Amino acid sequence: MQTLTVDLGERSYPIYIGSELFTPEHFQPHIAGRQVMIVTNDRVAPLYLQRLKAQLSHFQVSEVILPDGEAYKTLAQVNQIFDALLQARHNRTTTLIALGGGVIGDMTGFAAACYQRGVDFIQVPTTLLSQVDSSVGGKTGVNHPLGKNMIGAFHQPRAVIADTQVLKTLPKAELSAGLAEVIKYGLIYDADFFAWLEAHMDGLYQGDSALLAQAIYRSCEIKAEVVAQDERESGIRAWLNLGHTFGHAIETDAGYGAWLHGEAVGAGTMMAADLSARLGWLNAQDVERIRTLLQRAGLPICPPLEMPPQRFLELMAVDKKVLDGQLRLVLLKKIGEATVTSDFPQALLMQTLEAGQALGKL
Amino acid sequence: MQTLTVDLGERSYPIYIGSELFTPEHFQPHIAGRQVMIVTNDRVAPLYLQRLKAQLSHFQVSEVILPDGEAYKTLAQVNQIFDALLQARHNRTTTLIALGGGVIGDMTGFAAACYQRGVDFIQVPTTLLSQVDSSVGGKTGVNHPLGKNMIGAFHQPRAVIADTQVLKTLPKAELSAGLAEVIKYGLIYDADFFAWLEAHMDGLYQGDSALLAQAIYRSCEIKAEVVAQDERESGIRAWLNLGHTFGHAIETDAGYGAWLHGEAVGAGTMMAADLSARLGWLNAQDVERIRTLLQRAGLPICPPLEMPPQRFLELMAVDKKVLDGQLRLVLLKKIGEATVTSDFPQALLMQTLEAGQALGKL
Repeated sequence: MQTLTVDLGERSYPIYIGSELFTPEHFQPHIAGRQVMIVTNDRVAPLYLQRLKAQLSHFQVSEVILPDGEAYKTLAQVNQIFDALLQARHNRTTTLIALGGGVIGDMTGFAAACYQRGVDFIQVPTTLLSQVDSSVGGKTGVNHPLGKNMIGAFHQPRAVIADTQVLKTLPKAELSAGLAEVIKYGLIYDADFFAWLEAHMDGLYQGDSALLAQAIYRSCEIKAEVVAQDERESGIRAWLNLGHTFGHAIETDAGYGAWLHGEAVGAGTMMAADLSARLGWLNAQDVERIRTLLQRAGLPICPPLEMPPQRFLELMAVDKKVLDGQLRLVLLKKIGEATVTSDFPQALLMQTLEAGQALGKL
Repeated sequence: MQTLTVDLGERSYPIYIGSELFTPEHFQPHIAGRQVMIVTNDRVAPLYLQRLKAQLSHFQVSEVILPDGEAYKTLAQVNQIFDALLQARHNRTTTLIALGGGVIGDMTGFAAACYQRGVDFIQVPTTLLSQVDSSVGGKTGVNHPLGKNMIGAFHQPRAVIADTQVLKTLPKAELSAGLAEVIKYGLIYDADFFAWLEAHMDGLYQGDSALLAQAIYRSCEIKAEVVAQDERESGIRAWLNLGHTFGHAIETDAGYGAWLHGEAVGAGTMMAADLSARLGWLNAQDVERIRTLLQRAGLPICPPLEMPPQRFLELMAVDKKVLDGQLRLVLLKKIGEATVTSDFPQALLMQTLEAGQALGKL
């Protein structure tokens, strides 16, 4: 097992990465009171809820099981958590534990941020995506019919427990979705890591535990480094959104949950790479490396056929990165370095949006 | 006009207190972007919305008008604010303005805390209660059917604009409710202020602007001092809840909105004074001074006839101040000094709860 510390002063917390981490010593030091509320979903609960509860016998443990899926990442579901907390009379010293993927993590973190104006929580991410992304950085929240992640809070967990064993039961498409974010870390921050991923993508895609642990560690390390530099997302942290503005538009258009978040990020990353090439920052060979690696990770590399450019523009206009009506995008200066800019010719953006299916052509 | 600064480091903000403060210079310096969303209710809007909008002609101003009353301090109403923000495409640089009493302030602040994970807001409290209480301290949130203020966030406003002119249109019962909190500041922190209130209660109750401005200033000063010392309510800040644990039980039992918050605090303060006397901290004369002053402010001084002790215990058990099953109460060591304690004989608490209507007897 490896431990990574996210350095945020008095709110610093450890990320434990390895296998067989569901043991009391990883939980108990991070639970301040006697009450614990496990929040999970109906897909993860049959697999891991009892195993987790067995480790928490010293505490008064309650649980709430929500429906699985991005479509349920709503204020109404967070309200279910509040109901459960109040019915079981949880007080300010309670600790929430998020046992599930990014949706459960985001909702549980948001519930923890708001319950009695803020209680503790621990993340136990059960998907590759949430292990490398949504469990690090303190972003919590829910979707709104008019936009993804529009309602939320910054709230840091007390600890993150990323167990590679739980990935054994993860569907292949979800592994791919997680790999999209892993690839992103290489693209925005570390060309060597990108090259390492090119060397090991077959093993990663086949679920090799040791390789996955290495990839999770480096991904979390990069994210922790970026977040520690810029907790409130005024500068470099925005790099983490590579592919996300395009991706969010795809997700919103398709209806939440029709595309996995990581899949949309995969296609969105390809669109960002294409626009970066049109701006002269990437060459054809770079674009080809990106396309090939995404494809080997089992990811979609172009937007859906039925999405016209106008629809993209419309949906991207409500993105959080829009400032005073100016669309800002995360693009690539080169493999290993990103930039956030609104300074690009609209005509080039239109070319990328119009390329559509052609982005997937080798 | 007087200006009080709440000192919270980089989140410090001014409270402007005086009359005729609806002028651009009190708003513009605190609005960072171009977008403004005024949140108000259907009772305040006809009186002050146009007057406020006229001062904000430099900005893109939207508005949302919610139903008036504590019964509407819910997550569903906050969601109305999110709807309005997203429909008008407000981005992260938007500023929300709360134009109304405590309910509007609490919901607007909570919406600002959560919209895109946090945007700016300005408080324009239109009741005496919100001017001296809920607009200072950064507490925001909504009620849950199982408990008051159970969902919320700490989020500081950029500025508070407390205009005494708007109190001219305030119903008498709401003026009394505000005076309950004013009296509380004297009781917990400043015996001289309590004596000043005894000397000037008739003028205050008749709505004398100059006296009210003085009372608001000193109340905000005391609250700002306490909050600056203890932003997250681990110690002295809990003193501000004098009368509130009993009061919340009364409000919950009656159904939100049946009692004004300040009225419930008035009765709750009398109960806290009674228990403090039973503990030997206050003498009969102190209790008499408190009862008389509350009464002169037009406040109820005993709980409702139909509330049995058992019902109080049940409702107080879910109070946020309960730690590990121990009920903690804010009581008075003397006039001008409070204490938070769970160290009192249950039998004495029962005597206070059983006293009921007798608390109102002179």
